[in-house]
Amino acid sequence: MDFAQSYFITEEGAPTPLRAVAEGRVRFQEVDAMGIVWHGHYASFFEKGRIAFGDRYGMSYQEFRRQRTPAPVVRFHCDYKRPLLFDENYTVETSLHWSDAARLDFSYVIRNSGSDICATGYTVQLLTDKNGEICLLLPDWLASFRRYWRSGCWQQGPWRAVEDKA
Amino acid sequence: MDFAQSYFITEEGAPTPLRAVAEGRVRFQEVDAMGIVWHGHYASFFEKGRIAFGDRYGMSYQEFRRQRTPAPVVRFHCDYKRPLLFDENYTVETSLHWSDAARLDFSYVIRNSGSDICATGYTVQLLTDKNGEICLLLPDWLASFRRYWRSGCWQQGPWRAVEDKA
Amino acid sequence: MDFAQSYFITEEGAPTPLRAVAEGRVRFQEVDAMGIVWHGHYASFFEKGRIAFGDRYGMSYQEFRRQRTPAPVVRFHCDYKRPLLFDENYTVETSLHWSDAARLDFSYVIRNSGSDICATGYTVQLLTDKNGEICLLLPDWLASFRRYWRSGCWQQGPWRAVEDKA
Amino acid sequence: MDFAQSYFITEEGAPTPLRAVAEGRVRFQEVDAMGIVWHGHYASFFEKGRIAFGDRYGMSYQEFRRQRTPAPVVRFHCDYKRPLLFDENYTVETSLHWSDAARLDFSYVIRNSGSDICATGYTVQLLTDKNGEICLLLPDWLASFRRYWRSGCWQQGPWRAVEDKA
Repeated sequence: MDFAQSYFITEEGAPTPLRAVAEGRVRFQEVDAMGIVWHGHYASFFEKGRIAFGDRYGMSYQEFRRQRTPAPVVRFHCDYKRPLLFDENYTVETSLHWSDAARLDFSYVIRNSGSDICATGYTVQLLTDKNGEICLLLPDWLASFRRYWRSGCWQQGPWRAVEDKA
Repeated sequence: MDFAQSYFITEEGAPTPLRAVAEGRVRFQEVDAMGIVWHGHYASFFEKGRIAFGDRYGMSYQEFRRQRTPAPVVRFHCDYKRPLLFDENYTVETSLHWSDAARLDFSYVIRNSGSDICATGYTVQLLTDKNGEICLLLPDWLASFRRYWRSGCWQQGPWRAVEDKA
Repeated sequence: MDFAQSYFITEEGAPTPLRAVAEGRVRFQEVDAMGIVWHGHYASFFEKGRIAFGDRYGMSYQEFRRQRTPAPVVRFHCDYKRPLLFDENYTVETSLHWSDAARLDFSYVIRNSGSDICATGYTVQLLTDKNGEICLLLPDWLASFRRYWRSGCWQQGPWRAVEDKA
Repeated sequence: MDFAQSYFITEEGAPTPLRAVAEGRVRFQEVDAMGIVWHGHYASFFEKGRIAFGDRYGMSYQEFRRQRTPAPVVRFHCDYKRPLLFDENYTVETSLHWSDAARLDFSYVIRNSGSDICATGYTVQLLTDKNGEICLLLPDWLASFRRYWRSGCWQQGPWRAVEDKA
């Protein structure tokens, strides 16, 4: 079963999602009085996933800042399947789903060290200009990113924002 | 428009949701590098809302513990409408929606001091026994709570778990 | 015993410390797996204290920002006496201690609802200019604040930064 | 200059401190509105350091729990030298200092990826029995740990609590 598919409906013929995996280890203060990771901390696990994704695909937070493209989270959703305990290692598999719109649709799967699924979820980010107005058109650098994605060139190495400057 | 209604579908004839309002003020460390409350902190705002709800309706976390009824959050969802800034006052309106099942369906509306809606969301909690097995039947004390709710007696003052002990 | 005095040595004849009290209530996610507030969260309790202090004495974070006077914390110290539990009410008594230097010396006493001392501590903040260079001289607006303090005028109402603009 | 030495005064002839190094990377939500890591988050960096220390020397949190030896932090101190920024890599060098008493004295040095010292600090933990009473005598398993430390056997591999069971 593909959780990533279940959160977003993708048009026929869209490129397959891009994926990256981050690793983490539960911190002491992330565990609550019940002895399990407090549900609110999963937002930081998802963020860890987005950062690993950005590292791999040339879409880091720094790149968004450099391009003056704020991308605020407008929706956060998490389904909890199984608790994580103190000191457990976990992975965050993060997938970016194709969209034609000026938005970023990420889904997440968190697994414990035994590969059990502990949580799944998704976030939606809208792109804004520097005044906070929602973009109707995709900024050039992200349009370039999407062309690269659709062209299926990832096997030749990651896209870099700078390539588009030439 | 009633956000609370839009997250949960309630059967015909179900009692109206129970509501409580909590107040808060944005802490310095809740604001991120963009100058707005980091989206992950809304989980603690919703929790503030559930605690105020429990205070008002006799369903505090302590009561759940005393009754040995863990109620883990199995789903968290938040829609962000407008940012909250450092030091802003906000309110969390928390509503419990009727369900016949052994679960708790809460929705939330967060407003700033100008009464603008900043975020809405919902959580689902399942009830478990002390071994972590999901309850199929509602524990007696919560069944009593629901009878009180359905009877429309809230205007006579809050239900107390202890009433049912007699 | 005056904890505030024990953290800072004040010169003979210095004005008495200025004090303010903030109130808080322990949040669920502030409690760790041992069932007590995790020690690292006291930094946010102290900050709650500084904010209440700023509100009362006209030295809010917003005022520091408006005056372009960053005041980073360069030292944080906390002594833990007695644990705080989930849902406990607590107070933070915050005192600003006189100093002739371009720094802010705050001490803190956290008490539970039974007035037991749960923690004491202090912070030191240095004032910097907008480039992050440490100020050797006090900015005018804070010099005005200190003159007001030394003059013993607080009983006539709080000092306001704006007074100095005339 | 050895910061570790400056926080604790060690008796003549005491064994040299034991050290371990942890690595971390600044998370987005650890950065405040000033664009630097909020000072309160260093408590979690120190904790990361203690956990790496426990891993290396056989004194994990789990071991303390298994041995029913709570070790609450009774003092926390941090000196901030230089800010950490979003996404920076950092190291936490953690040292346990010799003491004859029933306490744990740790010091910490946090460095950025350029090896600049960003913060130093220390914590003191007291050992308690399961009722929360402070131990006057060291529990057997920790006495065994200290004998191993004094004997200078670390170069032969880490001490294990289980060794003492024989």
